[in-house]
Amino acid sequence: MGAVKTKRMPRAVREQQMLDAAVRIFGQRGYMAASMDEIAELAGVSKPLVYLYLNSKEDLFTACIRREAAALTAAVGAGVRPGLPADRQLWDGLQAFFAHTAEHPDGWSVLHLQARTHGDPFAAEAAAMRAEIVAFVTRLVAVAAREAHRDPDLPEHEVAGLAEALVGAAESLAAWANATPGATARQAATTLMNFAWAGLGNLMRGRPWTPPA
Amino acid sequence: MGAVKTKRMPRAVREQQMLDAAVRIFGQRGYMAASMDEIAELAGVSKPLVYLYLNSKEDLFTACIRREAAALTAAVGAGVRPGLPADRQLWDGLQAFFAHTAEHPDGWSVLHLQARTHGDPFAAEAAAMRAEIVAFVTRLVAVAAREAHRDPDLPEHEVAGLAEALVGAAESLAAWANATPGATARQAATTLMNFAWAGLGNLMRGRPWTPPA
Repeated sequence: MGAVKTKRMPRAVREQQMLDAAVRIFGQRGYMAASMDEIAELAGVSKPLVYLYLNSKEDLFTACIRREAAALTAAVGAGVRPGLPADRQLWDGLQAFFAHTAEHPDGWSVLHLQARTHGDPFAAEAAAMRAEIVAFVTRLVAVAAREAHRDPDLPEHEVAGLAEALVGAAESLAAWANATPGATARQAATTLMNFAWAGLGNLMRGRPWTPPA
Repeated sequence: MGAVKTKRMPRAVREQQMLDAAVRIFGQRGYMAASMDEIAELAGVSKPLVYLYLNSKEDLFTACIRREAAALTAAVGAGVRPGLPADRQLWDGLQAFFAHTAEHPDGWSVLHLQARTHGDPFAAEAAAMRAEIVAFVTRLVAVAAREAHRDPDLPEHEVAGLAEALVGAAESLAAWANATPGATARQAATTLMNFAWAGLGNLMRGRPWTPPA
């Protein structure tokens, strides 16, 4: 009965608190330097409870990557309405992406930096999320080609490369925007649309991409 | 005299052999998992000699980052002729970049992944190299704006964002090209020119960027 009485919060709530603390510490200190003591302290729980719930530092980190990846892809997905023109979908998706990475800088650091460079299974988790986003952008580029009745079709290899370039540009701009005081999600999305959609050549000729009203 | 006789190679040559081996092991295994034993074995020297010459795993890794960063920026610099039009400089620079990263995949992994995520001083070394490349691209974008007599000038903030986007796209494509059988440096550079210079919008309208003859 005593054990039940001290357990004031449901396990799911406590777990989320632990993950909140872990994302912050992993994101700010890096995976190797992060200490389970500090995570437990920030979460306001004992270290044994963290191990009881999440098992190990490795499992805790994996849980962080999964949660942050799911939150990011959900945010982008929620921002986009399929059926709209491709450039509108891209614009909406980019705004959602930059808004989310600006609101969750530690989560973004976990996904973009920490997860990718500490070997599997972490790298594989991050790669799976990135592949999902690349696949989404690849579909958008294909939609754009259909809309334009482009003939001949863009080769598949070229579409894949364009999607990789766009995702890489977005990753780079997200890190830059988070490190640049005053940069907004809308500005970052506008810059990327100018770059990706209009192209530097058009931009220089005074023909920027124009956001929908 | 005996010590002199066994020292068949100049120190500089031996050091380069150690760095060659270290870049390979750090690039393939990651910084944490890399073992000094394996590096010494691959270099064909004793482990104490590695420590005598390079002092520590940290110093060895720093030396690798510096060497690979200098080689990459030198390769890009050698590919570009200042004074040519901006899109030609960009095209030449991108081809040099993708050729170098394809020829030195372990060096690229050290710079792009390992160095950036194991804290300072490694991250600072990698950031310094990246900043140099971003500054080069920023100058190119400014040159392009001048060539186009663009009025009003692109805001500085926008130029910086465009350069970040371009560098991020190039980083992403380099990793993709290294992981994609049959991808060539020329293809990767063409894809990025289409993306960055012509823009997806133009590309879809059948107006790709055309390489100079």
